[in-house]
Amino acid sequence: VTRPIVFATDYSLEDEFVGVCHGVMARIALNARVIDLTHSIRRHNVFDGAFTLRRASRYMPEDAVWLAVVDPEVGSTRRSIAARSASGAMMVGPDNGLLSMLWGSLGGVEAAVEIRAEDVLIQPVSHTFHGRDVFAPAAARLAMGKPLEELGPAIDPASLVALRVPVPKVDRRHIECTVTDVDSFGNVELNIHPGDLEAAGLFERFRIGDVSVRRVTTFANGSTAECVAIEDSQGLVALVVNRGSAASLIRVREGDTLILS
Amino acid sequence: VTRPIVFATDYSLEDEFVGVCHGVMARIALNARVIDLTHSIRRHNVFDGAFTLRRASRYMPEDAVWLAVVDPEVGSTRRSIAARSASGAMMVGPDNGLLSMLWGSLGGVEAAVEIRAEDVLIQPVSHTFHGRDVFAPAAARLAMGKPLEELGPAIDPASLVALRVPVPKVDRRHIECTVTDVDSFGNVELNIHPGDLEAAGLFERFRIGDVSVRRVTTFANGSTAECVAIEDSQGLVALVVNRGSAASLIRVREGDTLILS
Amino acid sequence: VTRPIVFATDYSLEDEFVGVCHGVMARIALNARVIDLTHSIRRHNVFDGAFTLRRASRYMPEDAVWLAVVDPEVGSTRRSIAARSASGAMMVGPDNGLLSMLWGSLGGVEAAVEIRAEDVLIQPVSHTFHGRDVFAPAAARLAMGKPLEELGPAIDPASLVALRVPVPKVDRRHIECTVTDVDSFGNVELNIHPGDLEAAGLFERFRIGDVSVRRVTTFANGSTAECVAIEDSQGLVALVVNRGSAASLIRVREGDTLILS
Repeated sequence: VTRPIVFATDYSLEDEFVGVCHGVMARIALNARVIDLTHSIRRHNVFDGAFTLRRASRYMPEDAVWLAVVDPEVGSTRRSIAARSASGAMMVGPDNGLLSMLWGSLGGVEAAVEIRAEDVLIQPVSHTFHGRDVFAPAAARLAMGKPLEELGPAIDPASLVALRVPVPKVDRRHIECTVTDVDSFGNVELNIHPGDLEAAGLFERFRIGDVSVRRVTTFANGSTAECVAIEDSQGLVALVVNRGSAASLIRVREGDTLILS
Repeated sequence: VTRPIVFATDYSLEDEFVGVCHGVMARIALNARVIDLTHSIRRHNVFDGAFTLRRASRYMPEDAVWLAVVDPEVGSTRRSIAARSASGAMMVGPDNGLLSMLWGSLGGVEAAVEIRAEDVLIQPVSHTFHGRDVFAPAAARLAMGKPLEELGPAIDPASLVALRVPVPKVDRRHIECTVTDVDSFGNVELNIHPGDLEAAGLFERFRIGDVSVRRVTTFANGSTAECVAIEDSQGLVALVVNRGSAASLIRVREGDTLILS
Repeated sequence: VTRPIVFATDYSLEDEFVGVCHGVMARIALNARVIDLTHSIRRHNVFDGAFTLRRASRYMPEDAVWLAVVDPEVGSTRRSIAARSASGAMMVGPDNGLLSMLWGSLGGVEAAVEIRAEDVLIQPVSHTFHGRDVFAPAAARLAMGKPLEELGPAIDPASLVALRVPVPKVDRRHIECTVTDVDSFGNVELNIHPGDLEAAGLFERFRIGDVSVRRVTTFANGSTAECVAIEDSQGLVALVVNRGSAASLIRVREGDTLILS
């Protein structure tokens, strides 16, 4: 049976890059279901991509081939990799940490190879579009059942580039945390759980700079100009403004450090 | 046989929300064809969503499962519903009127349930992302042939929230009508047919405020700065500017009332 | 067997136009794989569409039905055409040159018809949305194996509108060439190969107006404010700025003529 492919990039849909990769995959694995997870990862932002894949991990088919491309160093010496997770998923992309939070959610890497097999690469391999010439054909071959080991020479999983997942500091009346996502609604996801707020004694309200934030259960509990904290769909604390943008109100971006007190 | 799913939201493609819902559906119904009708319904605009579904109704497969999410009240007490139309289509979404113009086009609602079955919901059900946790899995189950009645307790179709379809007022030399759509070309669709213009005696030209509008057959008949009225692809009157934006020229938005004279 | 369909338009994803065409195709050919090549061709820009199709031609399935719509003259007397290439691909779209660079890549047109068969068109055929009423159903019928000849009366391939592919002028120390694409990264593709630069004696550097451009191998070799020339993924010369926009730096748009010296 053909595996489904989960496809995520920072290519956007403004060009034909995503569509061309779909064509390459269809030439090899016409019947593979391809799920476009997103093509709106912030451009060249490997951190954003890694968190996006991690958030999605439990909602995709378990036997998926993950094809992810955020690749600011394309054409340099960074390796092109394919790997198998302990959970049995396959992962394809550049060796720059992009896949590392995903495999952290999938039990770690069981085996990895560098994609180099001549019969996998689309010739001539360009310097600028490895999504088309290296990654899409590799993912499609894996979807069709080609063994990982036939994509290229084995590499030590310990040698793969991995991103550090930021860890919050929770003290009495004080939390230092990281913005892990700003979505297109302007909702701001933090790397803390509601239990961390309890642990810090921040029960009903807290402050971020000069903004007072009230804790509520749903969007609908906030008035339209008020920044409130909810438990988001990942079980994490998110700052939101009902029908508005919390990111604009408190002026933060993904990756920023925030102090809650 | 697996039913196709027609998927429409206001999520945009700027985040991974649409892709995550696709993953949830693929885990349940890998072979279901999912048609992305649009994810550009104006955010939180139930009226826009309802008209979009209505316009599409005759062009989608008759046995489709419609999955629609425009849900400003997510996490509140509004019900999550699934329904079967007299035509045999299935519909899944929030009970806020979003689906009501669609079922109006499909012969009305034959049966409806509130989605509550434990084996359908993705646990834990978030307060903020019912597309992923409630609606997508419900639609995928229906696509796989699960009976509507197994999704939750029956509810009275008469209790479902329905939007009023605006009705134009057509007098002698005078029409009061509603803007039902502004597309990305800036074309302005009105809730009147060419026959309404005849009935009002507005044969070759009419005015909207201080703008003079000429009636023509196609885009190509208008000069590039002129606002003209055509019969659009829905058989309705639309105001257009050849290679330009009528919405900008006459400064209107969806839902506005216009006087034609 | 059902042929895959490659779908490209200038409709954007801001409206439901693309989704409605998918619905029309699904009603006829539910199992056809539809590859969305792109829906971001510049609006009404037939030249951009033609180059996009040409760039994609070798990466799509060989037996594909190409469905392309960039159609500023919709509703006028321009013909709606379907054609078979010497390579065995099918092509559907308006007769305005949009498909001409594609068939140039696919060995030329072997047979062509005007789409007029009553059982193919979706009635009533609108004046404004031939994607839905003419082209999508024609493409889906071809995908299902309907012979080209049954779509309408044969027309002479020599009568089809064809765009001229711009040809560069290469002199000693001097090249006059055309911008064939500006992608969403701001990368500027020219209609010349690296060999043309050699032929003109422009080995390590050249100038465009007052901008000095260095030749390098990959993006990563340029500093972040420097415009460099690379061989792009089509084997053509492209002007790029590492993590920036060359199109902004040298202020050019698609179709512009540039002098390199």
